[in-house]
Amino acid sequence: MSNWFDSSGPNDSLSMDDRGLAYGDGLFETIAIRNGQPRLWRQHMRRLETSCARLSLPFPGEDSLSALLRRAVDGSGFAESDATAKLVVTAGSGRRGYARPQDLAVNVRIGVFPYRKLDGACFSDGVEILACETRLAQQPATAGMKTLNRLEQVLGRMEVGGAFEGVMCDSDKRIICGTMSNVFIATNKQVATPRLDRCGVEGVTRAEILERAPLANIDIDVRDISLDECCRADEIMLANSQFGLLRARKLGDASLERTVVFERLRDLLADAGFDEYTR
Amino acid sequence: MSNWFDSSGPNDSLSMDDRGLAYGDGLFETIAIRNGQPRLWRQHMRRLETSCARLSLPFPGEDSLSALLRRAVDGSGFAESDATAKLVVTAGSGRRGYARPQDLAVNVRIGVFPYRKLDGACFSDGVEILACETRLAQQPATAGMKTLNRLEQVLGRMEVGGAFEGVMCDSDKRIICGTMSNVFIATNKQVATPRLDRCGVEGVTRAEILERAPLANIDIDVRDISLDECCRADEIMLANSQFGLLRARKLGDASLERTVVFERLRDLLADAGFDEYTR
Repeated sequence: MSNWFDSSGPNDSLSMDDRGLAYGDGLFETIAIRNGQPRLWRQHMRRLETSCARLSLPFPGEDSLSALLRRAVDGSGFAESDATAKLVVTAGSGRRGYARPQDLAVNVRIGVFPYRKLDGACFSDGVEILACETRLAQQPATAGMKTLNRLEQVLGRMEVGGAFEGVMCDSDKRIICGTMSNVFIATNKQVATPRLDRCGVEGVTRAEILERAPLANIDIDVRDISLDECCRADEIMLANSQFGLLRARKLGDASLERTVVFERLRDLLADAGFDEYTR
Repeated sequence: MSNWFDSSGPNDSLSMDDRGLAYGDGLFETIAIRNGQPRLWRQHMRRLETSCARLSLPFPGEDSLSALLRRAVDGSGFAESDATAKLVVTAGSGRRGYARPQDLAVNVRIGVFPYRKLDGACFSDGVEILACETRLAQQPATAGMKTLNRLEQVLGRMEVGGAFEGVMCDSDKRIICGTMSNVFIATNKQVATPRLDRCGVEGVTRAEILERAPLANIDIDVRDISLDECCRADEIMLANSQFGLLRARKLGDASLERTVVFERLRDLLADAGFDEYTR
């Protein structure tokens, strides 16, 4: 059974001439499928459409992507179960060279894979994280987007070792993101999350938290946060489309005991269909 | 007839699970084939081996790459002609996630394509270039390497329009590279080329020029060069593995008339097999 689908059906292979491979000229979304349905679909579509516009790529359209997702989820045997879907949009095939072809046609694929459930202790006890040495370069032109240029995350992930996640800083030692998650901190119940207009990925789960927070009278500051400030925080939390929200119980050697804000933010996500921690 | 080959023979397609597509987790070399033979092979192998080490990827070995290149050049019908070969090394297939698999096996491909000869006027009269607005982010961890993360070059190239090439600066407005070439400038016959330890690609033709220059008693400073300094230079030159060395006759609206150093540097490359300008 194939994992990957395009609009014509199962398709596991890509042309070696695809610009997604050649230059990382493309975008992706990692979508949680729960009981056969996509979660935060609206957030995924919003980010993808905005990112396509910023990269001058035609947005394939929500209807066609929704139909492809349906076929991919059903066709890969996850019609009624939990899974992780990866949607990839590349700038398609082109002749050699950085210039895109005049008749650019995006290549759209969706792959569906088994859901890798985290150990229950991650939800109940929190996870261990560390600060990566690898820095995120400051590039406003691509900041916030989930492009196919992700070598920094690969290098950052190599440092994580046995920990659950690594927090990455920019070259000015401000925290930006985890390798695969967004970061929230709380000190004296004041919640903050890093600005992502110089680098980092604007995660859909972060976006959902930021949208829902005012409804629950939670103020979240989006601002610069130094690594030093992060290290002094009462709580550090990680957001990701697959697991929702986790709290860090250790940052390097330092223990984090408080869980005041964490539960309030997790409740916000419960309303958006995140129930992994209850299972 | 296939353009792409792996060690088993022709192979134009890549697994959608390849980390080269997913994250740009890989490297490439663009090699000039002249009369069926690779040019600057030693420089390409040196850069690839160094880059593999920096990215913790196993270097496939010069002998096996040389054998694959031979098969690809012959098999694609360019055994005795001019062509452009593209060597791609990716971190291979792996399960979803930034962490590389324990049993990582690199995926090695070589594609061979027709040589796109430049118009003779490029060699005789020089080319028009401009300064791109898109900046190169400063990332020492990947600086100098030709990784598969090349979105900045794609964005830069979009600005070039009808010009031949765009010069890209870093966020501090120092010139670094063209989108597809390295830059040399000369003022009062003093030659300089940008440092590439914060960003940019260390081109093999640039490396060859730097190695040969002392033998011809030409001093080349490798240093920071501001865009302002570049705009005031007597000569601006572009180096690239396919065309060798070209001079800019215009940077934006400003004309560049002098060609004193240009011919001396071009002569260096003639000794290394660059004869495009004589044909």
